[in-house]
Amino acid sequence: MKPYSQMTAEELKQEEEALMISYRACQAKELTLNMARGKPSGAQLDLADELLYAVTPRSGYHSESGQDCRNYGAAYGIPEAQRTLAKIMDCDPKHVIVYGNSSLNLMFCIINHAFTHGINGNTPWSKLKQVKFLCPVPGYDRHFKVTEHFGIKMINIPMDENGPDMDMVEEYVNNDPSVKGMWCVPKFSNPEGICYSDEVIRRMAALNRAADDFRIYYDNAYAVHYLYDDDRPKILNLVDAANEAGHPDIYFEFCSTSKITYAGAGISGMTASENNLTEVRAMIDVSTIGYDKVNMLRNARYLKEGDAIPDVMKKHAEIIRPKFELVLELLDKEIAPLELGSWIRPKGGYFVSFHALNGCAKEIVRLAKEAGVVLTPAGAPFPYGKDPDDSVIRIAPTLPPMNELQTAMDIFVICVKLASVRKFMENA
Amino acid sequence: MKPYSQMTAEELKQEEEALMISYRACQAKELTLNMARGKPSGAQLDLADELLYAVTPRSGYHSESGQDCRNYGAAYGIPEAQRTLAKIMDCDPKHVIVYGNSSLNLMFCIINHAFTHGINGNTPWSKLKQVKFLCPVPGYDRHFKVTEHFGIKMINIPMDENGPDMDMVEEYVNNDPSVKGMWCVPKFSNPEGICYSDEVIRRMAALNRAADDFRIYYDNAYAVHYLYDDDRPKILNLVDAANEAGHPDIYFEFCSTSKITYAGAGISGMTASENNLTEVRAMIDVSTIGYDKVNMLRNARYLKEGDAIPDVMKKHAEIIRPKFELVLELLDKEIAPLELGSWIRPKGGYFVSFHALNGCAKEIVRLAKEAGVVLTPAGAPFPYGKDPDDSVIRIAPTLPPMNELQTAMDIFVICVKLASVRKFMENA
Repeated sequence: MKPYSQMTAEELKQEEEALMISYRACQAKELTLNMARGKPSGAQLDLADELLYAVTPRSGYHSESGQDCRNYGAAYGIPEAQRTLAKIMDCDPKHVIVYGNSSLNLMFCIINHAFTHGINGNTPWSKLKQVKFLCPVPGYDRHFKVTEHFGIKMINIPMDENGPDMDMVEEYVNNDPSVKGMWCVPKFSNPEGICYSDEVIRRMAALNRAADDFRIYYDNAYAVHYLYDDDRPKILNLVDAANEAGHPDIYFEFCSTSKITYAGAGISGMTASENNLTEVRAMIDVSTIGYDKVNMLRNARYLKEGDAIPDVMKKHAEIIRPKFELVLELLDKEIAPLELGSWIRPKGGYFVSFHALNGCAKEIVRLAKEAGVVLTPAGAPFPYGKDPDDSVIRIAPTLPPMNELQTAMDIFVICVKLASVRKFMENA
Repeated sequence: MKPYSQMTAEELKQEEEALMISYRACQAKELTLNMARGKPSGAQLDLADELLYAVTPRSGYHSESGQDCRNYGAAYGIPEAQRTLAKIMDCDPKHVIVYGNSSLNLMFCIINHAFTHGINGNTPWSKLKQVKFLCPVPGYDRHFKVTEHFGIKMINIPMDENGPDMDMVEEYVNNDPSVKGMWCVPKFSNPEGICYSDEVIRRMAALNRAADDFRIYYDNAYAVHYLYDDDRPKILNLVDAANEAGHPDIYFEFCSTSKITYAGAGISGMTASENNLTEVRAMIDVSTIGYDKVNMLRNARYLKEGDAIPDVMKKHAEIIRPKFELVLELLDKEIAPLELGSWIRPKGGYFVSFHALNGCAKEIVRLAKEAGVVLTPAGAPFPYGKDPDDSVIRIAPTLPPMNELQTAMDIFVICVKLASVRKFMENA
């Protein structure tokens, strides 16, 4: 079959009619399939079953620091858990705060704290006329929801295969003191699967800030989440780069074991300079008597303080790699020849980001929904839910079993074709 | 021995000398004992060991709602855990939000939210010149730390055996729109062990608020924490009272299983009107993908959705009642005849509140510390750490084993006598 762009009006009409027959057949099946969220599958969660036996009366409940993990105390975490997260972030365990089950919640709380108290002695953001964040796009919808919640003005920063457009980032950060932050998922970015290049990370670390309290909110959510054993990209260590640039305070780095052990019952945490950590600890001291240390001990023991992570992630990859391959093969076979979109082949992370023809994303998501396939809403990977090109659709292949994913992708492909052929018909 | 108040200067001098010999003997032992925090003992924590086996691959990880508790989702909690907390608060499970391991953190986050977003459409507190909270005293130091952190002006409200002085509360709440909240521990209050009378709770529910966003922050931390099987005081249900008064939005009620299962790894939550819950849910939706549901399931199963709580609390009481009795017997025997202080005999909760002679509390705590016994800092149960009478000392007897508690209390008694005799010597 030739690309739609080369078809005559009559050919387009015939194609549309043929697609509608397939589409109606899908609808008739009354399916309920979901490729919306980056959730691990049951089989992946089963991998961590040992977690549930990692802390028992027999194995003991004390951390090496002598802390009874069942009791109150140790508000910044236990040493074993600090080392576990330090392995993920490749940093000094002494500079790790271990938190509850949600790194997103930690980011939310730090931004909340910046509004009420300011960061490191700077004016609380609630006293400022405007606060802005740089948002590399497409990006993680829940990051953008947090900044939107606080009325922070979000500025789109285009991404290419090396990461965010650093010329634009420098322009803003160097000159505009109301720019207080930048969201980043530096490795296997959500949703593109991009790894920031060394140069991008070096330039981020070296940013000359107009605002002393500008911070990079560096969400290293997929730090160890490789799809291929023999192709494990490494990114430059931001902690080292920031220290080398003489900007030790320029970042807060976050991670979690959510997609290593249990998505909803892992542990999360952060690393930062001593100066930044002092600020966060002051907030923690007032806001809790401590996070769940039994679960810290569980995660640390099961992951052998991080040493078991490569093996664990290999097992995850064995489960999810075929799902990514199914998605990519179908796109290669059905969409590529028709020239109806583009996508990046991720080497890790949780998503395939499909770039439809401009103006087609919302329609594809709508068509899919009406055929029983829930996708992440079009626009979600952009601030305010607004994709300027109405093009990006985030495909999350990990949750459904293979047979359901196959069905869902078959429907997705039909929807892409149908929305696209109609676009050509309109313009014909 | 006669009361110090009836001793001559010479008798006081002899008594002081005798006490100093005992005190120096204690110091020579170089002890490190702690009666500072309301922590359960290891033996109490051991009671909940089954908790660690409550969720296993065999027992299953799904909630009755079909949710895989290991995965993301269900941001307001699972039904089993809602019912568990509803049993503690005696409320409708549908009006329960289940949170993470710390109810204090939930209170902190709601107050934080009030600052950035306001409550139920009212002006965010960060935009107000002043925000005030009423603080029944003595009260819980960590409540006061939260309000102090946000720069909220705290107003002391005296307590008697029925709870806070409601005339004073009404005067403030009826007339001052900057009064936005009131801290309460209504049952076995921290640290006095007082249960609010029905009339006090009814008057609280009926408060005519000058500020629409005034809320009672009702921390029902010791709702089921009885010391005596045959004497289990019941307090009026605030939820019902507020509904009857036509003020369904006047409160946020909090509770946790921290001192029922594991202090640091229980579950917490809240109940409130639908209107108030809608506000809290909106905050939760942005700030997390969900709290730890595996731990919710663990707590719900172990506590048989609340049905096992009376039995569990009976076992706790068997461990801690002798500790309370030891403290009270020693005070009765050593302090009462000398008329050097007063205290309430609590029927539940975690503390004995000792009222020393005015001006002696700091000195007693200092003396105890230098003899190796750490007590809660004098003043801690008051806003800004300032006890106007320098009188109240919170004794937390639950953590130390009986023999250590005995030693610590022996030292405490010597310190009370020593500080008191010196007070009389100064005034003689």
